[in-house]
Amino acid sequence: MSTFGSIFRVSTYGESHGKSVGCIVDGVPPGLQLDESDIQPQMTRRRPGQSALTTPRNEKDRVEIQSGTEFGITLGTPIALRVLNEDQRPKDYGSKTMDHFPRPSHADWTYLEKYGVKASSGGGRSSARETIGRVAAGAIAEKYLREAHGVEIVAFTNSCGPEALFPATREHPTPSTNPEFLELINKVTREDVDSFLPVRCPNVEANKRMEDLIAEYRDKQDSIGGTVTCVIRNCPSGLGEPCFDKLEATLGHAMMSIPATKGFEFGSGFGGTVIPGSIHNDPFIKAPVPADADARKIHGHGRPPKPRLTTKTNNSGGIQGGISNGAHIYFTVAFKPPATIGQAQTTVSYDEEEGVLEAKGRHDPCVIPRAVPIVESMAALAIMDAVMLQSARQSARSLLPVLPGKTIPVSETENNLTEKANGHA
Amino acid sequence: MSTFGSIFRVSTYGESHGKSVGCIVDGVPPGLQLDESDIQPQMTRRRPGQSALTTPRNEKDRVEIQSGTEFGITLGTPIALRVLNEDQRPKDYGSKTMDHFPRPSHADWTYLEKYGVKASSGGGRSSARETIGRVAAGAIAEKYLREAHGVEIVAFTNSCGPEALFPATREHPTPSTNPEFLELINKVTREDVDSFLPVRCPNVEANKRMEDLIAEYRDKQDSIGGTVTCVIRNCPSGLGEPCFDKLEATLGHAMMSIPATKGFEFGSGFGGTVIPGSIHNDPFIKAPVPADADARKIHGHGRPPKPRLTTKTNNSGGIQGGISNGAHIYFTVAFKPPATIGQAQTTVSYDEEEGVLEAKGRHDPCVIPRAVPIVESMAALAIMDAVMLQSARQSARSLLPVLPGKTIPVSETENNLTEKANGHA
Amino acid sequence: MSTFGSIFRVSTYGESHGKSVGCIVDGVPPGLQLDESDIQPQMTRRRPGQSALTTPRNEKDRVEIQSGTEFGITLGTPIALRVLNEDQRPKDYGSKTMDHFPRPSHADWTYLEKYGVKASSGGGRSSARETIGRVAAGAIAEKYLREAHGVEIVAFTNSCGPEALFPATREHPTPSTNPEFLELINKVTREDVDSFLPVRCPNVEANKRMEDLIAEYRDKQDSIGGTVTCVIRNCPSGLGEPCFDKLEATLGHAMMSIPATKGFEFGSGFGGTVIPGSIHNDPFIKAPVPADADARKIHGHGRPPKPRLTTKTNNSGGIQGGISNGAHIYFTVAFKPPATIGQAQTTVSYDEEEGVLEAKGRHDPCVIPRAVPIVESMAALAIMDAVMLQSARQSARSLLPVLPGKTIPVSETENNLTEKANGHA
Amino acid sequence: MSTFGSIFRVSTYGESHGKSVGCIVDGVPPGLQLDESDIQPQMTRRRPGQSALTTPRNEKDRVEIQSGTEFGITLGTPIALRVLNEDQRPKDYGSKTMDHFPRPSHADWTYLEKYGVKASSGGGRSSARETIGRVAAGAIAEKYLREAHGVEIVAFTNSCGPEALFPATREHPTPSTNPEFLELINKVTREDVDSFLPVRCPNVEANKRMEDLIAEYRDKQDSIGGTVTCVIRNCPSGLGEPCFDKLEATLGHAMMSIPATKGFEFGSGFGGTVIPGSIHNDPFIKAPVPADADARKIHGHGRPPKPRLTTKTNNSGGIQGGISNGAHIYFTVAFKPPATIGQAQTTVSYDEEEGVLEAKGRHDPCVIPRAVPIVESMAALAIMDAVMLQSARQSARSLLPVLPGKTIPVSETENNLTEKANGHA
Repeated sequence: MSTFGSIFRVSTYGESHGKSVGCIVDGVPPGLQLDESDIQPQMTRRRPGQSALTTPRNEKDRVEIQSGTEFGITLGTPIALRVLNEDQRPKDYGSKTMDHFPRPSHADWTYLEKYGVKASSGGGRSSARETIGRVAAGAIAEKYLREAHGVEIVAFTNSCGPEALFPATREHPTPSTNPEFLELINKVTREDVDSFLPVRCPNVEANKRMEDLIAEYRDKQDSIGGTVTCVIRNCPSGLGEPCFDKLEATLGHAMMSIPATKGFEFGSGFGGTVIPGSIHNDPFIKAPVPADADARKIHGHGRPPKPRLTTKTNNSGGIQGGISNGAHIYFTVAFKPPATIGQAQTTVSYDEEEGVLEAKGRHDPCVIPRAVPIVESMAALAIMDAVMLQSARQSARSLLPVLPGKTIPVSETENNLTEKANGHA
Repeated sequence: MSTFGSIFRVSTYGESHGKSVGCIVDGVPPGLQLDESDIQPQMTRRRPGQSALTTPRNEKDRVEIQSGTEFGITLGTPIALRVLNEDQRPKDYGSKTMDHFPRPSHADWTYLEKYGVKASSGGGRSSARETIGRVAAGAIAEKYLREAHGVEIVAFTNSCGPEALFPATREHPTPSTNPEFLELINKVTREDVDSFLPVRCPNVEANKRMEDLIAEYRDKQDSIGGTVTCVIRNCPSGLGEPCFDKLEATLGHAMMSIPATKGFEFGSGFGGTVIPGSIHNDPFIKAPVPADADARKIHGHGRPPKPRLTTKTNNSGGIQGGISNGAHIYFTVAFKPPATIGQAQTTVSYDEEEGVLEAKGRHDPCVIPRAVPIVESMAALAIMDAVMLQSARQSARSLLPVLPGKTIPVSETENNLTEKANGHA
Repeated sequence: MSTFGSIFRVSTYGESHGKSVGCIVDGVPPGLQLDESDIQPQMTRRRPGQSALTTPRNEKDRVEIQSGTEFGITLGTPIALRVLNEDQRPKDYGSKTMDHFPRPSHADWTYLEKYGVKASSGGGRSSARETIGRVAAGAIAEKYLREAHGVEIVAFTNSCGPEALFPATREHPTPSTNPEFLELINKVTREDVDSFLPVRCPNVEANKRMEDLIAEYRDKQDSIGGTVTCVIRNCPSGLGEPCFDKLEATLGHAMMSIPATKGFEFGSGFGGTVIPGSIHNDPFIKAPVPADADARKIHGHGRPPKPRLTTKTNNSGGIQGGISNGAHIYFTVAFKPPATIGQAQTTVSYDEEEGVLEAKGRHDPCVIPRAVPIVESMAALAIMDAVMLQSARQSARSLLPVLPGKTIPVSETENNLTEKANGHA
Repeated sequence: MSTFGSIFRVSTYGESHGKSVGCIVDGVPPGLQLDESDIQPQMTRRRPGQSALTTPRNEKDRVEIQSGTEFGITLGTPIALRVLNEDQRPKDYGSKTMDHFPRPSHADWTYLEKYGVKASSGGGRSSARETIGRVAAGAIAEKYLREAHGVEIVAFTNSCGPEALFPATREHPTPSTNPEFLELINKVTREDVDSFLPVRCPNVEANKRMEDLIAEYRDKQDSIGGTVTCVIRNCPSGLGEPCFDKLEATLGHAMMSIPATKGFEFGSGFGGTVIPGSIHNDPFIKAPVPADADARKIHGHGRPPKPRLTTKTNNSGGIQGGISNGAHIYFTVAFKPPATIGQAQTTVSYDEEEGVLEAKGRHDPCVIPRAVPIVESMAALAIMDAVMLQSARQSARSLLPVLPGKTIPVSETENNLTEKANGHA
């Protein structure tokens, strides 16, 4: 359906031919300072070649809050967000080649198979315009996660076609063992990423190679795919719901719901299948003092404490047994080459007659750079819902009497937390 | 949570130390012939080194139907399934090394972080025993899909460590363009797969190489990962719910919820990111007469008709715009090396003290072969729920009056279907 | 949350101080002819003293479709609906008495307890304006149900204060045994009901008595409650999901979610508790030929057949064992007197200080007449979701082979249906 | 479906002819002390004429925990509960009159209409045996609510046929204005109620009149209905989710899902519709010191604080704007006379032929007394889920920075709470 999340719940709507696109976000915590300026930057980054972080604001795709706030503060009630479509005139059906041919590897044919009717504008909700609602909702989730937990979510272009930032090597069949990769995800910011517009690969050489590759495909009227990698720093531990809603499962669901995705991997990923367990296992170590320790102090900002243990390596990608362990979560998403190409393609019409299809005008030869903020947004939505589910449990538990004795393993931190939550000295 | 699916809905329960493990399956269509013998074979295949297809039935993990059938026919009410645990004695807490150390890359630590308490037996629901409920429920879904739609779901071992059935080559960076791969998924059966026990790789040479590799890791007291590939044949078109519940998203969710998974890809997958759009696009062709055409004839068995169009190539993996197009759906799942190894590992205890952990006894050096029936089961659950959601829509639409004129693209098949569903000649 | 339904799913948003109010309706069957003129009439009836059935259209609360249709036909994708708020200026907080006092029996206090913050305009989403989204969505459900199943939903004012259309008598402690009541619900139309504006009680004398009573309370600056009764005719049999989503449970949920409701009863209701089982039981009889038999014929319009049996009496209110039996469904909803009254009320402020509160201006002394279209809308939403859930099951079952022999009771109709659905002669 | 709740989620299974009945309870807070002895008493009270509070334990319907606890402590994982059926032999179909006739006002006919097949034992899941899973799950919810919040849930028989504990009078058209009623719900305990076995009406005279009435109907081979009233004391404020999941809506849903219910009212209920707003409105007053103040102190047991305000009267029934305000929640549920009666009934067979049906053996002439623990259990399930949803929100909000200034109404308590939750002095 068009709803994502169980407690922090986003419902989106809209095709390109209608009046507007947008979403309703239900379950936003009350008391969060929020206005359009918190949402617009990611909306703008989603548009081709734009950085809301470094360039003046683009006046297109302006988001407007319809409900759920007053005086710039969230009320806890549903927040509706809306972006006008600029060209809403439906075209007469039957006048274009596209009206007679389902475009190869587009959603024209499957939408017709599914619904029995189909928007004349093409695959309806499969258009990239659908992602506006996701990005708008994600910006709200992100703001909460940053304010309450110091969470940082940064995605970047990891590969375009065969040009990869960290190609698999014999030594490092997966980037999860590669110190350069680990250093990058430890530090990379959105500013870094957007300083490499339009490709968004945070490395001078790789970015240049990718830019050239994309230009080459554009000139050939062809297209190319690639991958986006995303890191989530400062994610609270304990997120993810066994068994079916493991954190990697809801993250995977979120990512695979983005148009044009072909694959998802987290931590060591596919490359991790060729590493022995003796290397892949992440030994535990005592956790260092967190960078935002002050913000986590009892009398300070009030962020919950970090786990006492962490792992020495992080092939787990911050998730073990489907539950976050407090280490960086990172994952990579594969996107196929765009289906719309200028080259002629032989295919058949809705009436089963063979013919040739040729897209007119300029087309985006690679979606990877624009996918970056969409990946970040979906990550924020998945994490936010997991945070609220875990809150419900932890908060419920904190009101129970402290358990007697030592019959069962009990988290010391948790017992302390219970006392703190209830105001014990 | 421990529930999967929205209309065909499975809830599982059980840890290894309790009385039993099992599930409730709600939403099973009434009128399906079903008894324990439909479920037991996959339960048995899930046990190490077993084929219920070729060997005498193993008497362990016997499933027992508790409700929802009478005289071997489903009533439409919830079907509860139960498998006894053999050794239910909880151990005294504190007597073993494992009680003091969270095992590296296991769920011991994250379960404690999440719940504040933890089963003494380890990661509780993260144990492989949890998958029993999934496999039992999946067998019901599979039986329905086979009877009603002729669906065939077959998974097999695709790689163990670096030993792959179809290694990426310059010519075929993804198996989706490799004729040998396409031929295999077109024909492979469970009988074929189980004739290659214990590895389950349906190719004599590859199977042998993998068997040797696994033996090597066992002898080193180490472990190794791998991948499982699964094909779904005869899947109805029109499955998958835009935007968030695209078919690849729910399949991905299902797969990433299996313990020890690290990645998911469908169709051309990660390899597809390096292929140009001009090759990756799947041109449409007129669909051939289906093999089970008789079963789909108006007066025959009654299966719904197949789509009139299909694709010449299948880099889409049977899913376009998040919706199945009737072609083979195939995908690959990555599994990490098992975390339990006999080698000594330096790590820290729950009390942050460094120490050495060494697993006793024999351990499974590779989970891939046992993962095969689990992957099939989760695929069946995801497809079954999508079938029922699509049924609701199609059935609702079939009662509306036929639309006038040609203002909007309408599926001819659908209009015919409407007439058929309502008994028009 | 702000979502109702599982497959036909409505999410609403909006407070009176925001830019707009509205909803997203997901799961609308594709191929339904729909434009604003199908929705506006119930929107207009919802406004005080209006009948869209008999009076020229009121230009306020104009609904606008944002998405999900093209050329006036539903696409199967989410339909967003939006109504502008006329006065969106938020007031400065602290300037009015109401800012200091939680109004008695309003939601001011509980919203603050729940969310920790509160809209200055009062109880936020508890305002009657919230119901706009429900009514808009309900109109879509109604149109489908009418087109596909001939369903008719009509509500009317049943009592205002002590003035009742069918007061309980010794002979008829419940209207379900009263022939006059049964005749009314058999025939009453919205036109009938709206010919008794503004009270909407379809009986000359009772309507006059209620009108006088409401005037009396208005003059006393007081308010009064009442009840709305609703009948659903031509509801398909088989709706309602055991055990927790019995049809009366989801209808009750729907009704009790309307602001100001205090009770719900269906069929014989509370009055039915004093009737002996020997009278309360509804004996089965052979069903008569339905009025729309032609529309249900095999080669006609295509509505599904009616059940072969019906009941002689209908104390069950059309629902038995939580499942509709095809007879008229009827129920009654109690509404409290409006909390806003002109009389002075002694209460305490947010700061626990006693004071006197007096509402200024004109207030609605009775909400019953306006509740009529809201009750109809929520009934439509509950039935529509149940129809789609049952469709999924029936459609899934229809593809299974016909069961052998006579080991288990099987519906003949169902077996015939199976054959018809699959085109058997 | 067979699932209730969104975070605290109960799935039930089982008919009378299967191996067992039971449920899975997902979302139970970890760290709760729990074993079978916490669950069995309500199971026993559910059996005819039994009080587990005062009589020796009946050995029937023994519940057995399958999973989710260790050493008597909940792990946070799903708890499966199971009760064996004693007589599991399915009968040959066709041998009894009942096999040919759908019993009037039973679910035989509607189950066949819904599912197309039907258990030979009758209405399958509509049997009273289905409620075992609800009562077992409810006992877990109750234990948590009692331990964490001091919640007390007590139901009692309020009327049997025309014999009512608090008949409507001119002075008190609703018990909500009747001081005797208010005193009773303020104090009544389960011990009180069970001292009036078998009728469970906590008043000597009324209990006797009801006992005689039931005996009279039994002797006439007839049956009679009645009402159960339930009070929830110490319910936290802030529960209930606008707009569709108002607390009265989910309570109403819960109650109307119990077999044989005909109506639901809360607070002033249907009687409240005849009271003027000036009397019906509940003025606010400063809340008294709670009885369990010590348990709510900062350094004590840790229960959250009670609201600073309460209401002078309680026609609202503890719920305003769909949200609990901390006052007693009370409601009444109507149950119809049992459909199984010894008297002969003329009806038609499945084959539309007229005949006479006569139930053999002894039948329960009134279900009200047994409904008492079922009503309590469903109340516990509805409140528990609402508590966890509200916990998620409150806990999420408590981590946000304190809002600046006075632009928007903010709960002082909440701001204090935030500081406390984060350990501020």
